Amino acid sequence: MPTVHDLDTPSILIDAARAEANIARAQAHADKNGLKLRPHIKTHKLPYWAKKQVAAGAVGITCQKIGEAEVMADAGLADIFLPYNILGRAKLERLLALHRRVTLSVTADSTATLEGLAASFADGGHPLPVLVECDTGMGRCGVQTADEAVALARQIDRAGGLTFGGLMTYPAAGRAAEAEAWLAGARQALVASGLACERISSGGTPDMWRSSEASVVTEYRPGTYIYLDRYQVAKGVGTLDDCALTVLATVVSHPTPARAILDSGSKALSSDTLGLPEFGELLGMPGARVTGLSEEHGTVTLANGASLRIGERVRVVPDHCCVVTNLFDQVHLIDGDKVLETLPVVARGRMG
Amino acid sequence: MPTVHDLDTPSILIDAARAEANIARAQAHADKNGLKLRPHIKTHKLPYWAKKQVAAGAVGITCQKIGEAEVMADAGLADIFLPYNILGRAKLERLLALHRRVTLSVTADSTATLEGLAASFADGGHPLPVLVECDTGMGRCGVQTADEAVALARQIDRAGGLTFGGLMTYPAAGRAAEAEAWLAGARQALVASGLACERISSGGTPDMWRSSEASVVTEYRPGTYIYLDRYQVAKGVGTLDDCALTVLATVVSHPTPARAILDSGSKALSSDTLGLPEFGELLGMPGARVTGLSEEHGTVTLANGASLRIGERVRVVPDHCCVVTNLFDQVHLIDGDKVLETLPVVARGRMG
Repeated sequence: MPTVHDLDTPSILIDAARAEANIARAQAHADKNGLKLRPHIKTHKLPYWAKKQVAAGAVGITCQKIGEAEVMADAGLADIFLPYNILGRAKLERLLALHRRVTLSVTADSTATLEGLAASFADGGHPLPVLVECDTGMGRCGVQTADEAVALARQIDRAGGLTFGGLMTYPAAGRAAEAEAWLAGARQALVASGLACERISSGGTPDMWRSSEASVVTEYRPGTYIYLDRYQVAKGVGTLDDCALTVLATVVSHPTPARAILDSGSKALSSDTLGLPEFGELLGMPGARVTGLSEEHGTVTLANGASLRIGERVRVVPDHCCVVTNLFDQVHLIDGDKVLETLPVVARGRMG
Repeated sequence: MPTVHDLDTPSILIDAARAEANIARAQAHADKNGLKLRPHIKTHKLPYWAKKQVAAGAVGITCQKIGEAEVMADAGLADIFLPYNILGRAKLERLLALHRRVTLSVTADSTATLEGLAASFADGGHPLPVLVECDTGMGRCGVQTADEAVALARQIDRAGGLTFGGLMTYPAAGRAAEAEAWLAGARQALVASGLACERISSGGTPDMWRSSEASVVTEYRPGTYIYLDRYQVAKGVGTLDDCALTVLATVVSHPTPARAILDSGSKALSSDTLGLPEFGELLGMPGARVTGLSEEHGTVTLANGASLRIGERVRVVPDHCCVVTNLFDQVHLIDGDKVLETLPVVARGRMG
């Protein structure tokens, strides 16, 4: 069996046992609180983990692109939520083809999106559930008021090939209570209008962990919980020891005592820090932080006695693991130093 | 012939005539000033453009990864510079194989790197030129003093399979004069030690444009000049009308009058802004800036009368084009609305 010492750098290592433990822990929390889990596959982009998530009790999966959903459907995933406004003939045709082979649901936040869906799914065979996306504070997509949500829900209800599927939001970080109040108000307005709202879907790993039975939310779409990263640790979701994804890198230069350079730059670790002050840290070496990135160089600043030597191989915990998996064509599942399996990141780079 | 209207979004469009003009303009500047151009292929990652750059007069190309160099060698590029510390048996074996089929040169900034090169290339057939990387202010890789440069040059000179190839730097942005003085001093120290220093290689599109015959630099490795981007425009290298690369995107949501959402997020436009305050701007729409990104959403803030409608297709000029081409599996060469050719980004995602 190959070991991590046989791998070239940079490479993504996934501690399989940690990922499995993270899946089990989240599912147990969801089960205990009567919540449905619908994991977002954007984090791993692998049917391998999607199937494990469903086997553990997830009601289905979430994809963000039709191309991701197609990959997952090909691999046998049967229930897919695509919380995105799908527009344009080419994408609507692919969406209809998906609808004919898996249990599909989507979202919309405008009449323009709904008109396209209604026209394409008029002869869809069975109705497509469409959830209304709500802007509960994130300031991205979504209707702005409960009245708008009711108006769109009515439009969905009237369309022959569609059926109103509930509400969807991605809440602003740390503002779950605000989202909760927003959604409760919208549900009330819907019920007052005679529209049942049985599914309320929310996102985000930190919020999922804070959720409880008392929530108006019925379903969570956490992504990062499976691998975790420095951002999640900063948010209190687990510790560095729970992080399953690391980037194996080599020290290629050590120009000054406090500065070492890795062969892993923004093309391996990504420039996306989610607001953290550094780009990553070296596993087991608290004084070694990645403080700068260019495309093929990662600058490590050494402090508190941390030391490195040229040629040494290290493991970097990145800030945001989801964007890292999009940069690599493959990941290696490991158990200690053993490489259990090497998987192509088949849903990577799906643009449409 | 297909048109851009036939393409799904997000897609990369390359205005072929603009890229050709940018190649010609830079080569003319280099020729006029007696400088050699050795374009960095990291910007386009395509043999198609590498060949055009060489045909226009470039002395060869620059790659940052062995995997990129292998792709380019396979495509017939004959002279490749790899300005990187190559370490580890697997990479050194691939480097030796490359050396046997193309005119190769590399860099080193430590005895550790040199020891690996010397051991691997002892029986290389003909010596491998190794340039000493110098930190002239960038604070990344590179020796810190002229004395260190001389010591490494001597070590290269003594190694049987290697030959001292000169000096290499990537200068800090806006500090070309400092780099110039550093390199002139090191060259003088080398010559005083009896080591000829005929090749001095520097990088960066803005510096290349500011260079002149009086410079100590003999060779530039500009990358971005072929496509240009918002960062280069901010640095005074051309205008938005010279930018050859845009990302074709669709407006998928318009939740408030001042906010529209594109189907192009950090997975298409990258989080790397090179310090600019926004992530991109819409071509021909000065009041429409990309002010926020999540993985699959680009938030456009509309001002000064700019307006968009849901379903509309727009073209985004990104901040940093090199990282954008690494995110897409293909690019489309265009002439106006016509799609001339669709090219796979064959050197994309080369990690090792």
